[in-house]
Amino acid sequence: MKNRPLSDPLPLYPILYEETVRRTLLEDLGGRGDATTAAIVGPGDTATARIVARAPGRIAGLDVARSAFHCLDPGLRFESQATDGRDAAAGETLAVVRGAARPILTAERTALNLLARMSGVATVTRDIVASIAGYPARVVCTRKTTPGLRVLEKYAVRAGGGSNHRFGLDDAVLIKDNHIVVAGGVTEAIRRARSRVGHMVKIEVEVDTLEQLGLALQERVDAVLLDNMPPETLAEAVRRVNGRAITEASGGISPATAAAVAATGVDLLSIGWITHSAPSLDISLDFAFGV
Amino acid sequence: MKNRPLSDPLPLYPILYEETVRRTLLEDLGGRGDATTAAIVGPGDTATARIVARAPGRIAGLDVARSAFHCLDPGLRFESQATDGRDAAAGETLAVVRGAARPILTAERTALNLLARMSGVATVTRDIVASIAGYPARVVCTRKTTPGLRVLEKYAVRAGGGSNHRFGLDDAVLIKDNHIVVAGGVTEAIRRARSRVGHMVKIEVEVDTLEQLGLALQERVDAVLLDNMPPETLAEAVRRVNGRAITEASGGISPATAAAVAATGVDLLSIGWITHSAPSLDISLDFAFGV
Amino acid sequence: MKNRPLSDPLPLYPILYEETVRRTLLEDLGGRGDATTAAIVGPGDTATARIVARAPGRIAGLDVARSAFHCLDPGLRFESQATDGRDAAAGETLAVVRGAARPILTAERTALNLLARMSGVATVTRDIVASIAGYPARVVCTRKTTPGLRVLEKYAVRAGGGSNHRFGLDDAVLIKDNHIVVAGGVTEAIRRARSRVGHMVKIEVEVDTLEQLGLALQERVDAVLLDNMPPETLAEAVRRVNGRAITEASGGISPATAAAVAATGVDLLSIGWITHSAPSLDISLDFAFGV
Amino acid sequence: MKNRPLSDPLPLYPILYEETVRRTLLEDLGGRGDATTAAIVGPGDTATARIVARAPGRIAGLDVARSAFHCLDPGLRFESQATDGRDAAAGETLAVVRGAARPILTAERTALNLLARMSGVATVTRDIVASIAGYPARVVCTRKTTPGLRVLEKYAVRAGGGSNHRFGLDDAVLIKDNHIVVAGGVTEAIRRARSRVGHMVKIEVEVDTLEQLGLALQERVDAVLLDNMPPETLAEAVRRVNGRAITEASGGISPATAAAVAATGVDLLSIGWITHSAPSLDISLDFAFGV
Amino acid sequence: MKNRPLSDPLPLYPILYEETVRRTLLEDLGGRGDATTAAIVGPGDTATARIVARAPGRIAGLDVARSAFHCLDPGLRFESQATDGRDAAAGETLAVVRGAARPILTAERTALNLLARMSGVATVTRDIVASIAGYPARVVCTRKTTPGLRVLEKYAVRAGGGSNHRFGLDDAVLIKDNHIVVAGGVTEAIRRARSRVGHMVKIEVEVDTLEQLGLALQERVDAVLLDNMPPETLAEAVRRVNGRAITEASGGISPATAAAVAATGVDLLSIGWITHSAPSLDISLDFAFGV
Amino acid sequence: MKNRPLSDPLPLYPILYEETVRRTLLEDLGGRGDATTAAIVGPGDTATARIVARAPGRIAGLDVARSAFHCLDPGLRFESQATDGRDAAAGETLAVVRGAARPILTAERTALNLLARMSGVATVTRDIVASIAGYPARVVCTRKTTPGLRVLEKYAVRAGGGSNHRFGLDDAVLIKDNHIVVAGGVTEAIRRARSRVGHMVKIEVEVDTLEQLGLALQERVDAVLLDNMPPETLAEAVRRVNGRAITEASGGISPATAAAVAATGVDLLSIGWITHSAPSLDISLDFAFGV
Repeated sequence: MKNRPLSDPLPLYPILYEETVRRTLLEDLGGRGDATTAAIVGPGDTATARIVARAPGRIAGLDVARSAFHCLDPGLRFESQATDGRDAAAGETLAVVRGAARPILTAERTALNLLARMSGVATVTRDIVASIAGYPARVVCTRKTTPGLRVLEKYAVRAGGGSNHRFGLDDAVLIKDNHIVVAGGVTEAIRRARSRVGHMVKIEVEVDTLEQLGLALQERVDAVLLDNMPPETLAEAVRRVNGRAITEASGGISPATAAAVAATGVDLLSIGWITHSAPSLDISLDFAFGV
Repeated sequence: MKNRPLSDPLPLYPILYEETVRRTLLEDLGGRGDATTAAIVGPGDTATARIVARAPGRIAGLDVARSAFHCLDPGLRFESQATDGRDAAAGETLAVVRGAARPILTAERTALNLLARMSGVATVTRDIVASIAGYPARVVCTRKTTPGLRVLEKYAVRAGGGSNHRFGLDDAVLIKDNHIVVAGGVTEAIRRARSRVGHMVKIEVEVDTLEQLGLALQERVDAVLLDNMPPETLAEAVRRVNGRAITEASGGISPATAAAVAATGVDLLSIGWITHSAPSLDISLDFAFGV
Repeated sequence: MKNRPLSDPLPLYPILYEETVRRTLLEDLGGRGDATTAAIVGPGDTATARIVARAPGRIAGLDVARSAFHCLDPGLRFESQATDGRDAAAGETLAVVRGAARPILTAERTALNLLARMSGVATVTRDIVASIAGYPARVVCTRKTTPGLRVLEKYAVRAGGGSNHRFGLDDAVLIKDNHIVVAGGVTEAIRRARSRVGHMVKIEVEVDTLEQLGLALQERVDAVLLDNMPPETLAEAVRRVNGRAITEASGGISPATAAAVAATGVDLLSIGWITHSAPSLDISLDFAFGV
Repeated sequence: MKNRPLSDPLPLYPILYEETVRRTLLEDLGGRGDATTAAIVGPGDTATARIVARAPGRIAGLDVARSAFHCLDPGLRFESQATDGRDAAAGETLAVVRGAARPILTAERTALNLLARMSGVATVTRDIVASIAGYPARVVCTRKTTPGLRVLEKYAVRAGGGSNHRFGLDDAVLIKDNHIVVAGGVTEAIRRARSRVGHMVKIEVEVDTLEQLGLALQERVDAVLLDNMPPETLAEAVRRVNGRAITEASGGISPATAAAVAATGVDLLSIGWITHSAPSLDISLDFAFGV
Repeated sequence: MKNRPLSDPLPLYPILYEETVRRTLLEDLGGRGDATTAAIVGPGDTATARIVARAPGRIAGLDVARSAFHCLDPGLRFESQATDGRDAAAGETLAVVRGAARPILTAERTALNLLARMSGVATVTRDIVASIAGYPARVVCTRKTTPGLRVLEKYAVRAGGGSNHRFGLDDAVLIKDNHIVVAGGVTEAIRRARSRVGHMVKIEVEVDTLEQLGLALQERVDAVLLDNMPPETLAEAVRRVNGRAITEASGGISPATAAAVAATGVDLLSIGWITHSAPSLDISLDFAFGV
Repeated sequence: MKNRPLSDPLPLYPILYEETVRRTLLEDLGGRGDATTAAIVGPGDTATARIVARAPGRIAGLDVARSAFHCLDPGLRFESQATDGRDAAAGETLAVVRGAARPILTAERTALNLLARMSGVATVTRDIVASIAGYPARVVCTRKTTPGLRVLEKYAVRAGGGSNHRFGLDDAVLIKDNHIVVAGGVTEAIRRARSRVGHMVKIEVEVDTLEQLGLALQERVDAVLLDNMPPETLAEAVRRVNGRAITEASGGISPATAAAVAATGVDLLSIGWITHSAPSLDISLDFAFGV
């Protein structure tokens, strides 16, 4: 099935993000502390804080936000009231944090920055996925992710109903135009790759023309990346592939054009901006004195 | 003077970002390598690569991009043809990299992801700065930065002609609504802060009403954050402050509204989305075989 | 109020020192272990250990000491019987540690080295603060701190009743003689700084003469560092400043001279030796077999 | 031979301290930069800086200081004019740094804090060594070192003419009073240690009385730590040992008492305060515009 | 083609192993130094050292060994006289190191431990590869690698003429018996995997019986792991697969049995002991005074 | 007593290995996750897993294995049914892990790789120890350990009934042939070492001939390493030493020759292959659905 919601995500074990959270918190503390909160809030003051979506969106990263609070004070109680991979309405409470007021205020920005970015990625992914709901095509992300946050953004894409492409340069072969230049042609590039990579590595090749596509199909690649082709060419490419390889369209796909691309019958729409240019979701923390 | 270009930036010493670059490169390599390039490109192959702006924008991060290539292979030659803090046209070559083809292709995505994000922040900053060119107000960023990249994004804001607000929770006092709730009022919050922070720490207080503003001025704070006030209220606030404190407007300032806000006479426009929601600038690498 | 005790410190969250504690413990273990304790003490042996002040002093660092024991064995019970920021008499028990004898003996030196150094800083700070009790001046520390321990020593200064100056090169501007040499004069140096730093950054300038002081006051700096001036010159400087800037005396201030300096009416006495040359407080661990 | 100068030290390879230098520099930069220098000093400004001893002392740590400058800017030229392990007079130039003015000013405090602390340790060691020059006894340090700086302070002790005791809990057995309590007696403690440690590990035992000393000698330990014994008891202990073990005196040895202790004939004086309470040597940086 | 020599390996960029080398060196130094060499060898002494194979074998890791020497002293000259992926005879010089004698002696063990282990893996791989030279089957490694050294051991397998299986849990799907237990059957396990992983991820399934094999083939997996099957069953399995999937034999394959397994026509022999139990190759360092 | 079992080991505090475990787990996850388990096993599925020895051997590393599971999921229950330093039969259950099925399957390989390697070292040590049971000699390991795992392998040697030689270059002096070359002779090398190392450092010297042995004994070293001597020469060496130093035989000692070497009366047999070439013990995980 396509564009599955996050019913069964690649689990985001804390070992995969706890160093990121710790580093982000220290970045905000300057390695020193929170001058304002220390001066104004007493060590015994307590608070109840609601993390609230200010705009509607798809949520991702609640456990990461929780980790930010607990990294500062394991005694804080963090109760999720929303679920990663589900939508939240504007004004909806996503989680409630209770306990000492100081660490709540000090960890607030770190927690929100992470949650808002991940939810922003999930939300734009959800929207582009929705725009092609009538077609079998799936939305996949790229390696154009925020430096240091790839594992979190790949997760957010899944939370938005998208699928993941390669996680990195190591886990699959994607032969791009530059590799073809070096090899001297599509055919030679694919043959080099096939003869030199392990048996568990899939091979995809980027093609710009139908002629290159023909060469790629002769070499029986696992997938073809149809780069910057107009819809009619894409449709013709899909016909020529005829199920012999996974077809992936890429290059400037926008919400305005996504449906037309999906209508060509391609299997995948590869879209970089869902990670590199997604605006953060507007999420804030409402604070009340006392628990 | 206002909105100065990056003639004299806070220098971005490599010690401030080299770990970020290294971590990003390893994230893309999965700690293992680049399967495609290793299979197709020979160890003796050489290349000349041009880093090219696909869209016009303000450039920031050339040294960071250079560092990505050199982190993988110190023997690569990287020549900047653009300058941080200056504009580049669409199609303009920003830098040329020459040397072994393998490390160029393997470091490409890391270098571009960093450069494109930083230039994206610089570009939206430049645009919002330009939109208020007729007014004395300056644009400042916030702590709503990408986790792990704050020092790079603060630099990019300067490259875009903006100024930096606090770098973190430690380097100035910004009393927000939640602190005021705990203290029981604006006056008490300011007094606590003043009595407890060092003599080199400035104090700013967020006020939502003119009444709060009056209380803040009585306590002689260094700056007031006028949050979510309509232009007419802002203008009245500026009149009442009358130079006794720096005035900073915040809350949903957009390119559409920035000029109207600046026209109220405030000193600063504080804008979170120039860091948390700036789209990456479209920058790519053109590759030619041989040096 | 001046020279406040540590009733409300900048909280020392474990995230700010736990890596320091871990590194110190591994430094003492050589990454290997405690040969003596392993050979002589059995895994089932238990003990009650009292951390005792051998000399009277101001205590700082009890949570850091606790962290050393817990880093090795989270099952140890650590009960503070003293309080950071309060004085302890010679012979007074500061804390009691109960549990497995091996980790108590193995973590002992790490815990004591940290606690003794921090308490040493707090104690000399307390003493110099006491010596100027009759004057409104406050004691502030400098950046002459022990490499790697700045956040702990700044805390210890607060525990001793002192205040903190800048935490680092980033959080305020302090224009020193060398900067003035480069700028070509006090006036130009201040103007450069004012035009280029953010609105939340205070500016202090070091002046050696009353003439320089006059120039600095014309530029309306936030604070002046009156370096190596004899008391009569200091007094004259304070008169000339007349409340227009914070006045800070520095340069070879000792317990013998502090009162005379404070008597000049300066706001702050800046003293490097309270961190760079404070002797450790004599603290040891009394050990009894069994819990 | 005793109290050898640093003609042949345990080499201080950069791998042993470069992380310490890097961490210290980042601690001072707050991970952000040097606001003052960036605002006032231009990227093209150059300078010549002399690192000068303000007080006479024994120098240690010149390579560590060099590393601080090079960590920020490998292009700076650093020329030592003094030598680790040798004395410098007040006013003597220890090193000259030439190059870009910005990194010189920014790294100054990190370099000086490290050099001044190490030279402080070397100087007090030299002084106590000198005070017992007429006796064969050597001065040794303890594990009461500054957290995180042990390898540097042990080196500084050697530079001061002292010798090193254990580097940590792993590299030799030192049976202390608490271990004896657990074992139930000196004899049993030594026997446990002997039967359980490797053949390359020496065993020393702390004894408080001549009776304990007798028991220790029966077990043929390598060294005895004679703790807090008055000179006459020490002398008697040395007589009883009669060359069968190394004799080490410890406990409150001061410059005033060192000669009397050494006169008892002990082989070693173990002194904690040469590391835990040594004041920093007064060293500063004289700055001239241009190279 | 099968069992290719290391003509074109996945390049082993220093970024992939330099932390491992650094950590290993510090492990041997205890963070402190080399007591023997420091005491006996002078800072000005020079040496020429030959790294020599004491036993014949396949070499892997020369750059890693070089890195160990350069990590301690970048001034040492290291000249390889052998090549990774080629055989060396007993007594053959693999590399010559020239320069300061101290760092050569201090880095010797780290360099040799890494080179000997990698060459040991390469050598046993080469031998098992040779034993099936008459068959088209390839030798592949597993995830049973030495903790912390996976990227180096996978490289050594390639140097020995073997191929790499998955690098980790993330880069391909390998459905094992335990996953089948949870899914309730081969068919369901494969279907779950297919519906939930990205399009660039290959799927292999472990089967214990020909019946399971039939189910797997119906689901059109990319590869089948035929676990612990006797040769005749393997041969039957290969016949049934008939080219529709890659066939991989695993389970206790030894030099004595490898040819019989390869004779069944399987594509791959998966062998854990070439990494988890390979003996180190005997390599030592011959030392001569002077360069 | 000799060859003691692990009744009283150097305790393996988690601080000594938790980073190794964490790094190994991330190495296997590629920083991303377990694609197979995530796709097939549900977040609510539970399991009971038995860690079982497939071959008989000496067990070492149960706490390290536990740590691998808990690093991923602290909620897993891990019950040891075997003991480090004791033998296990083929088929014996070493530990039972209960809880969420996903983290059990994901941590399995990391836990087994560590436990199998450590138990492999313990087993070959045990066997060689057993082969010399009739003699007083002890088996000691060397510095030829797996890079990054020294502290774990030294522990495994103790678990196998062996003893530890030096942990690193810092904790004892071992004068080897190369040092003697530099010093110009055995006598000079020993004298340099004695005059320059601390009083708690033992000195051992490697000798190749009886003549060198005589020189070493004149200098009264603590131990002599009799390298590559045939049994009759060893026996003569032991006679000449006559208890004046510890005698250690080294060089190609195998199970076949160990008894003959031990029969010469040497105190120690130093054997590198028990760490650098020990095969892993065959240990696997039996998995059952549900707890």
